[in-house]
Amino acid sequence: MKGKPMTALEDDAIALVKFDANGLVPAIAQQHDTGEVLMMAWMNEDALRMTLARGEVVYWSRSRRGLWHKGETSGQTQKLVDFRIDCDGDTLLLLVDQIGVACNTGRRTCFFRAVRPEGVTETEPVLVDPGQLYGG
Amino acid sequence: MKGKPMTALEDDAIALVKFDANGLVPAIAQQHDTGEVLMMAWMNEDALRMTLARGEVVYWSRSRRGLWHKGETSGQTQKLVDFRIDCDGDTLLLLVDQIGVACNTGRRTCFFRAVRPEGVTETEPVLVDPGQLYGG
Repeated sequence: MKGKPMTALEDDAIALVKFDANGLVPAIAQQHDTGEVLMMAWMNEDALRMTLARGEVVYWSRSRRGLWHKGETSGQTQKLVDFRIDCDGDTLLLLVDQIGVACNTGRRTCFFRAVRPEGVTETEPVLVDPGQLYGG
Repeated sequence: MKGKPMTALEDDAIALVKFDANGLVPAIAQQHDTGEVLMMAWMNEDALRMTLARGEVVYWSRSRRGLWHKGETSGQTQKLVDFRIDCDGDTLLLLVDQIGVACNTGRRTCFFRAVRPEGVTETEPVLVDPGQLYGG
């Protein structure tokens, strides 16, 4: 690849990111071509480096307290298309190519509940049986 | 307005949201028609209720420790178009109509730095002089 060695690029990114008191930064995943906001999860420094190095998104699971290569179980991986950092350095925007569905409920996006005058409304259909995603 | 009284709707939303240990929830603002992800900020319960009641976005400023009616100084308000809650209830997605620019650097979106093989690249032009936004 032309350009900077990957480790130098990772260092550049890390230098711009302000991790919180727990060493984490929120990362928003957006489908690069349709603009759908798919999910928000967290990264630590290792997750951020692995995401840039692999070109596939790796988060930090706060519940499991471990690295979480998105899709490693379900196959619903996120290929990294562009890696953005906000003005304050405290939020990331990942433009991705999402294979299948982002949400473990089997919906394309996790943001499927809308609060509207008529009440709380579901905006996204279940596309895949969650049991099928996780071999349940 | 037809449908539920606003306070009941606010209560429905609050019941679905899991605020963190500081009483806050992250809220992503996305331009409703173009799909641009504009910014991410935080809401407490009061900010969430005010956003739904006014139809304009109000955040909680962690640095100023106070309610932050986005655009109250700069005029760059966010009209609420749809209010989404994710599967876990721990992140909000606000579809908005952004007046002017979302970023206090004068750019349309806060996510204007991209980490790419050739180095860190700016992807968004400055549209408004920040001094003009804040009367500086």
